Amino acid sequence: MSLLQHLSTTISSSSSAFLVHSNFNSRTKNVSLQAKRNSIFKCVAAVPKESQTAYKTNVSRNGNLAKLQAGYLFPEIARRRAAHLLKYPDAQVISLGIGDTTEPIPEVITSAMRKRSQELSTLEGYSGYGAEQGEKSLRAAIASTFYTNLGIEDDDIFVSDGAKCDISRLQVVFGADVTMAVQDPSYPAYVDSSVIMGQTGQFRKDVLKFESIEYMKCTPENGFFPDLSGVCRTDIIFFCSPNNPTGAAATREQLTQLVKFAKDNGSIIVYDSAYAMYMSEDNPRSIFEIPGAKEVAIETSSFSKYAGFTGVRLGWTVVPKELLFSDGFPVAKDFSRIVCTCFNGASNIAQAGGLACLSPEGLKAMHEVIGFYKENTDIIVETFNSLGFNVYGGKNAPYVWVHFPGQSSWDVFSEILEKTHVVTTPGSGFGPAGEGFVRVSAFGYRSNILEACKRFKQLYK
Amino acid sequence: MSLLQHLSTTISSSSSAFLVHSNFNSRTKNVSLQAKRNSIFKCVAAVPKESQTAYKTNVSRNGNLAKLQAGYLFPEIARRRAAHLLKYPDAQVISLGIGDTTEPIPEVITSAMRKRSQELSTLEGYSGYGAEQGEKSLRAAIASTFYTNLGIEDDDIFVSDGAKCDISRLQVVFGADVTMAVQDPSYPAYVDSSVIMGQTGQFRKDVLKFESIEYMKCTPENGFFPDLSGVCRTDIIFFCSPNNPTGAAATREQLTQLVKFAKDNGSIIVYDSAYAMYMSEDNPRSIFEIPGAKEVAIETSSFSKYAGFTGVRLGWTVVPKELLFSDGFPVAKDFSRIVCTCFNGASNIAQAGGLACLSPEGLKAMHEVIGFYKENTDIIVETFNSLGFNVYGGKNAPYVWVHFPGQSSWDVFSEILEKTHVVTTPGSGFGPAGEGFVRVSAFGYRSNILEACKRFKQLYK
Repeated sequence: MSLLQHLSTTISSSSSAFLVHSNFNSRTKNVSLQAKRNSIFKCVAAVPKESQTAYKTNVSRNGNLAKLQAGYLFPEIARRRAAHLLKYPDAQVISLGIGDTTEPIPEVITSAMRKRSQELSTLEGYSGYGAEQGEKSLRAAIASTFYTNLGIEDDDIFVSDGAKCDISRLQVVFGADVTMAVQDPSYPAYVDSSVIMGQTGQFRKDVLKFESIEYMKCTPENGFFPDLSGVCRTDIIFFCSPNNPTGAAATREQLTQLVKFAKDNGSIIVYDSAYAMYMSEDNPRSIFEIPGAKEVAIETSSFSKYAGFTGVRLGWTVVPKELLFSDGFPVAKDFSRIVCTCFNGASNIAQAGGLACLSPEGLKAMHEVIGFYKENTDIIVETFNSLGFNVYGGKNAPYVWVHFPGQSSWDVFSEILEKTHVVTTPGSGFGPAGEGFVRVSAFGYRSNILEACKRFKQLYK
Repeated sequence: MSLLQHLSTTISSSSSAFLVHSNFNSRTKNVSLQAKRNSIFKCVAAVPKESQTAYKTNVSRNGNLAKLQAGYLFPEIARRRAAHLLKYPDAQVISLGIGDTTEPIPEVITSAMRKRSQELSTLEGYSGYGAEQGEKSLRAAIASTFYTNLGIEDDDIFVSDGAKCDISRLQVVFGADVTMAVQDPSYPAYVDSSVIMGQTGQFRKDVLKFESIEYMKCTPENGFFPDLSGVCRTDIIFFCSPNNPTGAAATREQLTQLVKFAKDNGSIIVYDSAYAMYMSEDNPRSIFEIPGAKEVAIETSSFSKYAGFTGVRLGWTVVPKELLFSDGFPVAKDFSRIVCTCFNGASNIAQAGGLACLSPEGLKAMHEVIGFYKENTDIIVETFNSLGFNVYGGKNAPYVWVHFPGQSSWDVFSEILEKTHVVTTPGSGFGPAGEGFVRVSAFGYRSNILEACKRFKQLYK
C-alpha cells in the first residue's frame, strides 16, 4: 500500500460521532493516527519532496466539522464490510446494512431515460440549464400524485437530487442560529448537517449526544412516538415517518399532536416521508394530510426507495408558500434562493425518469418493486419472531428493528458479521436510544434474504 | 393572476444584490411589495381561510440570507427576458445571456448514457448508491485526461453534479469564520455563497460591495489580472481562469505570482477552470501546472460547457491531499465528509456520460463542439470590433466582454434587449468593476449568432 493510498484510506475511514460508543478512546486513536501519518511523511522515501516539508496553510479548520470527530455512519459500515472481506476473502457477504436498493429499475422508467438521453443528441430534444426548482411537468406530476386534494401546488414542489441533499440545503436556509430536535434514533443526516451548520455544541461522550440538540426518545415503551410533553421547544423539528431506522409510522392522531405542538411553539417541522409508499396501514402518507400543517411543515421525499433511484438521484421537497418565518418572510423564497445559488437542478435525464415513474404504468411498476421488498420484510420479521426476538417496524417500512436488550448494538453488529457474513446496521449509529437494537434492511435479492435468514436461524437457534 | 401565482412570481423574481445599482430604492420597493402582499391577504376573497390569518412561525429568518436582499443574477435575467416576451409576444428573442449551451450532445456520449439507463433495468447492470466521491473509473479518467503528469491522483478527484454545487459545498467546508477574495468582476456564485455562509458583513450600497470580501479589481488597465501588491490577505481566494465574465486567461507567470501570493499568506486558492478547454493560447489549463500549487489550491471544473452537460449535471473538484489546514488536518478529508453527508454522488447515468466524454472519440467530439462555439465567439468579436468597440475576452473563453465606457451596464442591457431582442448579461451583475461592460455569450445556434450580430450592427452602426 503506497503512502497516498494509505492517506486516502485514512480520509475515507474516519468513524462516526455515534461510533464513539464502541470507540471510547477515539481521541487517542486520532492522535496516534496523526502521529502515524507524520512518521510516514518522515520516513518513506517515495514521498514527493514537497510533502516532506508538510507545508500548512494559515486557514483554520472549520470548528463545526471538527465537532463531528467522525465519518458518516454508512461509509463507516462500508469500511467495516471491506475489512471483513479482506479477512474472509471467500466469504459470501450479504449486505442488509446501508439500505441500498437491488432490484432493477422497471423498463417503463428506464426507457424514458433512454429516450431523453437520445433526444439530447438532437437539436429539437436538446435541453441545457433547466429551472433550478425542477421541470414544470414533473413538479405538477408530483403534486397531483402525492398531494391530491391537499392544497399543495406545483410551485410548492422543489425537485432535487435526493432527500439527503435537500436536508443539507434546508439547513443552509436555517443557518447557525436555530435550535433543532430529532427523533432518537434517527437518520444520521439530520444531526450531522446540524452540527456542520454550527447549530450545536460539542459532542458529549457521557450521554452520546450533541449539546443543543433535543433528542426525542422513540422506544417500544412509547410506541416509537415521543412524549411531546417532555420535549423542549426548538425552532426546527426533524421527523421521519415511516421512520428510518425503527420502521414505525406515526398515526393520524400522533401527527395531529405533532402539528399542534409545532404550532403552539412556532416551530418548523421537516417531515421526511421517503418511505411513505411502503405503508401497509392507513397512516397519513404526508404531513399535509394534517389540517394546518402547511403553516408549520416542510416535507422531503425521494424516488430512491420507490423506483430504485439511489444511484440515479432524484427527490423533492415541498415548501408550502403558507410557511413563514417570524418576520413574515416566506421560507419557500429563501429555499428557492438556495436552490438557485447552491444547486442547478436535478439531471434532466433523471427528471425524465421521475416523470415516467408517475405515469399509470410507472406507478404500477413501482408498486410491484415495493411489494417485492415488502415480501422480503415479512421474511425477515418472521425469522426474528420465530427466534423469539422482539421485532419492530417492517409493517410500514422496509426496515426491521430487532431488539437485543442489554447488548451493545456494535457488538451485535460485529457478531452477526463475524459469524454469518451478514452486514446490518447497529442501532446506536442512529442515536443513543438505538442502543440495543440492530436495523435489518429488506433491500436485497430474494435469495440473499433467504440465505441471510437461514444464517440468522443457525446463529440464534 | 391568482394570489398564489402572484406569490410564486414574487418568490422567483427578487433582484440580485448587484442589481441594486439600477434599483437604488430597492429597500423601499421591498417594503411596498410586502405591503402589497399583506393587503392582498386581507382583501382577496379566494384566499384560503388559513392564509388570511397569516400565521407566522417563531423561527427567525437566517440573517445571512437577508443580507442578499436579492435573487441570483441569472434567474433575474430570465425574469427580465420573460417580461420582455410578455411585452413583445412576437419578438424573435435571442438569448446570449446566461451562457447556456445549445448544441446537441454528441452521439458517442449520449449512447453511453442510453446504455447505462438500459442496464439499470437488468440484474447485472443495476447499480444503487455509488461512492459519494464518484465512480473509480471516472475519477481515474479525469485524473489522466486533465492532470497528466501533474501528480494529481484518482482519489484527489471528487465527482459532482456541477462546479456551482461544489463551490457551495466548499463554502460549507470553510464555514463562517474565513475571509475571502474574489476577482471583480466574477461569477456571482462565489460572493453569494460566501454571504450565505456568513463570511461577510452587510452589502454596502455606496461601493456596491459586501463588507469583509476582498474585491480584486480586474480591468483592461491591469490586463484583467489583479495587482496583488494591493490585495489584502484572505483565507480563501476564488480565481477563475479563463475568466467568466471577462474571458481573460491568466498566463503562467501570473499564476505563478498567484500561487506565491497564496503561499506567502497561507491562503487557499479555489481555482475555477470550467472553461479551460476553450483556450487558444498556451496558458496553463490547470492551476496544478504551477509548481507548489497542490499545497495551496483546490480546482473545480465541469462537463457543462465541454459536452453540453448544463442539464445533465456533471462536474468535479480536485482537492489534493497535500492541502492542509493550519492544524495540519487535510482539507480533502473535510471535503469528503461534506460530500458524504450533504451529497450522495452524481447521477450514475451522468457519470457514464462523463466517462464517454473522456474516451478518444468523446474527446474528439467535445473538441468539435467547443470549436463550433469558438467560431461563434470569433463572429461576435469581429462584429463589435467592426463597430469600433473595445472588446475583451473571446480568444480563450466563450465570452466576449464589450466595453461601453461611462454607461450603466443595466442600461446597455435594457437598450439591447429593447431594440434588438437580444439578451446579454450586464457586467455590473458580476461585481462593481464590471460596470460599463456587457457580457455576450457565444453559446447559441449559428443562425442566432449571425442574426444577433446583424441586429447589433443595425443598432450601433
